[in-house]
Amino acid sequence: MTQSTPAWEAKAAEKRAQLAASLPKEWLVPEELLPPADQDDITTWPATSGWFTPEELRITESTASELVPLLASGELSSEAVTRAFCKRAVAAQQLLNCLSETCFDRAIETAKARDAHLASTGKPLGPLHGLPVSLKDNINVKGLDSTVGFASHVGDPSAEDSALVAVLEAAGAVPYVKTNVPTAMMIAETVNNVFGRTINPLHRGVTPGGSSGGESALIAFGGSCLGVGSDIGGSLRIPAACTGLFTLRASGGRFPVRNCRSGMPGQEAVMSVNGPLARTLDDIEAYTRAVLNGEPWLLDSKCLPIPWRETVPIPQKLTIGVLWNDGVVRPTPPVARALKLAVARLRAAGHTLVDWDPVDQAEGTQLLARMFVADGGKTIQHELRRTGEPLRPEMHMYGTAAELGTADMWKLHGERTAYQGKYLDRWNAAGLDAILCPTIPFNTVKHGTFEHVGYTGVYNVLDYACMSFPTGLVVDKVVDQAIDHTDPTYVPLSPSDLKVAAGYDPETMHGLPISLQLVARRLEEEKVIGMCRSVLAALNNESKTNGVNGTNGTNGTNGVVHEI
Amino acid sequence: MTQSTPAWEAKAAEKRAQLAASLPKEWLVPEELLPPADQDDITTWPATSGWFTPEELRITESTASELVPLLASGELSSEAVTRAFCKRAVAAQQLLNCLSETCFDRAIETAKARDAHLASTGKPLGPLHGLPVSLKDNINVKGLDSTVGFASHVGDPSAEDSALVAVLEAAGAVPYVKTNVPTAMMIAETVNNVFGRTINPLHRGVTPGGSSGGESALIAFGGSCLGVGSDIGGSLRIPAACTGLFTLRASGGRFPVRNCRSGMPGQEAVMSVNGPLARTLDDIEAYTRAVLNGEPWLLDSKCLPIPWRETVPIPQKLTIGVLWNDGVVRPTPPVARALKLAVARLRAAGHTLVDWDPVDQAEGTQLLARMFVADGGKTIQHELRRTGEPLRPEMHMYGTAAELGTADMWKLHGERTAYQGKYLDRWNAAGLDAILCPTIPFNTVKHGTFEHVGYTGVYNVLDYACMSFPTGLVVDKVVDQAIDHTDPTYVPLSPSDLKVAAGYDPETMHGLPISLQLVARRLEEEKVIGMCRSVLAALNNESKTNGVNGTNGTNGTNGVVHEI
Repeated sequence: MTQSTPAWEAKAAEKRAQLAASLPKEWLVPEELLPPADQDDITTWPATSGWFTPEELRITESTASELVPLLASGELSSEAVTRAFCKRAVAAQQLLNCLSETCFDRAIETAKARDAHLASTGKPLGPLHGLPVSLKDNINVKGLDSTVGFASHVGDPSAEDSALVAVLEAAGAVPYVKTNVPTAMMIAETVNNVFGRTINPLHRGVTPGGSSGGESALIAFGGSCLGVGSDIGGSLRIPAACTGLFTLRASGGRFPVRNCRSGMPGQEAVMSVNGPLARTLDDIEAYTRAVLNGEPWLLDSKCLPIPWRETVPIPQKLTIGVLWNDGVVRPTPPVARALKLAVARLRAAGHTLVDWDPVDQAEGTQLLARMFVADGGKTIQHELRRTGEPLRPEMHMYGTAAELGTADMWKLHGERTAYQGKYLDRWNAAGLDAILCPTIPFNTVKHGTFEHVGYTGVYNVLDYACMSFPTGLVVDKVVDQAIDHTDPTYVPLSPSDLKVAAGYDPETMHGLPISLQLVARRLEEEKVIGMCRSVLAALNNESKTNGVNGTNGTNGTNGVVHEI
Repeated sequence: MTQSTPAWEAKAAEKRAQLAASLPKEWLVPEELLPPADQDDITTWPATSGWFTPEELRITESTASELVPLLASGELSSEAVTRAFCKRAVAAQQLLNCLSETCFDRAIETAKARDAHLASTGKPLGPLHGLPVSLKDNINVKGLDSTVGFASHVGDPSAEDSALVAVLEAAGAVPYVKTNVPTAMMIAETVNNVFGRTINPLHRGVTPGGSSGGESALIAFGGSCLGVGSDIGGSLRIPAACTGLFTLRASGGRFPVRNCRSGMPGQEAVMSVNGPLARTLDDIEAYTRAVLNGEPWLLDSKCLPIPWRETVPIPQKLTIGVLWNDGVVRPTPPVARALKLAVARLRAAGHTLVDWDPVDQAEGTQLLARMFVADGGKTIQHELRRTGEPLRPEMHMYGTAAELGTADMWKLHGERTAYQGKYLDRWNAAGLDAILCPTIPFNTVKHGTFEHVGYTGVYNVLDYACMSFPTGLVVDKVVDQAIDHTDPTYVPLSPSDLKVAAGYDPETMHGLPISLQLVARRLEEEKVIGMCRSVLAALNNESKTNGVNGTNGTNGTNGVVHEI
């Protein structure tokens, strides 16, 4: 560093060096064992590299729900499980740049304390006894920074654990790493001026999504079995969809947010929430139950006193509205195919599927954007100015927006509330249990080309309980052919629609997972999890679908599934 | 009206004429039957006037909980009950100026429909079958204005019923009148430029409080047994305390607010809520149960899906923090005496009473004021400007405040959230079930002299579940002597403290009820109702209190009750 290095660059370099130094040498993968640079999919690498012991592989390829009973019985020690995930997380960091902070020493101390507790009492500490849990960078852990991608926050460690960490630790969990985010957590990919860009382990040329993309990359790589992200416009669901994971975006007030760092502190017109990312629905449910039964409302004034509701009825026959496209950006062929197939199989399973008119979707997306920049970007600009850090190009709207006065902000609140009422009335009139729709218009995209958060963002404006879930289908370049957007009959719905169509590259996406989104009413977290189980059951039941094929089929666009 | 009459005056006169014309002639009390102008307490007048039949008196002097079973069994017809309350409400309007709108024809039609339903099905429509319920002016009823005291809203009838009216009607209730409020509902008395001032039937020289003072006056007079008000800084609790009624200020999200008119639409930093006013705790509970079991969250996106929780445990022995004074304004002698007595009797009943440090109260009060004027008063000024209506002197702060930009508003949100966290931490550390404190620093005040909403307003900032309840004690001019604020040893806590001390007039207040406030955690509505029952039981149990007397006693200030 020369004396002329800008403050932000010096801070960022200092932070990267500090992170690198925190990775224990014995866990650093030797250069020669790393996969070749031209290997796109590196999810297969851990098992074939020879770097991990069979025990480490067995642990890190287990789900949380598989590990919990083994930890609770003492068949696996928390220390062994924690060490295995720490080691694999270090490899993930080398390959994916997915971490922001580590607390390996604390984690191993905590793990040992869990093991001692079990040994002395014969009982697990709680429902997540001994389980390592990774955390998005914004979730404060005592002594660790929460830079959320800003150089200005380097060297400002949290004085205490966040409420969520307290609840997770009381449930027995073991925090061990924090994961990378985009600047202010306001980009749908994961890139910032401090740590740089996070990579997708399923294909290193595509994004793991954002803003919880450090989490999604880490979990998809096996460096964590259960992680916590956050979502204000899709930041849980987008990375889950980009990596084939499950996530729950709970409505505001269920999971504690106290003493988490916000990208735009005090912004409340649309609530930021946090929630789990994992490879299975069971793990999402286990996390949700554990946190809600930890009574987070006793620690966080924003939490609602609604414990996990065991007895929420899930109708045998669901009424599901299908949002084929949102009127702004059409889903790419693989996503459209997955949606069609899901609809056909749900109908075959006896559920009622109805079209959901996209008439209100664009307005919701616009409301979200207006609320995000209501301060004219001042809050974000202030953080950048402190170190001379440049505004990233992905965030240009935070550099150009005009600040609203509070009187105009109140009017915007009124517009948003009216919108919520209108949407609720339509939902009631249709008698819906859920909406099924894309999570994002594509399965994922090449780095730096993400476009359109409308499919997720509308449900942040509405504060509905949503999941993104992998359908089990993957992109098939033969079936899911490129869109000929140069054809004269192709009429884009919007500039974004054209970009998405033009950007879809079947060759790159081939084999990558396709996710969908399931949306329930506000605060129906238990119901949306239960309904997701019904949707998966239908999706996995091929025999009933009259020849509508999935991954390898060519009938995804036939007449049967067009009918709705 | 001359051509030079300002628009607002013409509108206001038009509105008053319209209201007067809506009162059926046969229900208008003849001049000669009205009480003499020098009669302060007119609550005794209905029974002695000869204007009401014994049946009308029996009905209108019953509580909601007494009427509901008689209505459900058909022993009383809804029509008879509705007509009786309509007639008494007209008398109330003549004497107290407490109404803003009437819908007597609709009410009687609705009542007849209730009777027909019972006759044809043999079953009541719902838990409030056939019961007339009065509504604060801001609660929209189809075809009626909701001026909320602004001339600008005259002649702008609501196109539809509010969600609350829909839920109440589904429960069987019968709306029949709307009640007066102060301008924008932002004064702690009930006075505006359209309808003028509402009077307290317990003493016509004092205020029934505000902003739900039309309701409190009407109910205290017997013109309603159950009414709905709203509260953003004390607007339910203040009028309840001024008239000796019970009220519940629920946390935001329990009672529906959709399609109610706000005084400051879109202001969300502190939530406006609505709730019941009644003469008994049973009636408050019956209303709360009925509305929550009506699933208001299906109609209002702001409502939480938390039905009435029947099984909330109320500890046998409560831990109650006592806020003797808030460090800004000391309670007047009768309120201080009632609080001391309540503490002594609660302790005698085995509850644990601890001092609650007022250290955080002033900050909460200041936060509330800052949030109210964050728009620089623009929203209210806009409504006034539309008709040239002058800003009332009680609302001067809405004429002088500086508007915050959204970036600064976000900072204020952050301050408020930090405050909520700090208060919650102290609550947890003290292991409280409740706080017991004054509702207002006095029992009530002479018209135009209300000072200090801090005792209520802090709990709006915190969004805690609160009740104001009458202690059963009344002011005794012999015991509750005037404060000698000219004494050199008297040191006021604040200018407001001095005004309150100087304004306390035992002669005027003699015999008027004294209320207190009970505060529970956020969203603990069932618990605060249950705890209020425990407090009332203790207060009514004189035998255990070692000579500490209530209304007529002189021991309210002795050593026994000073100990805490």
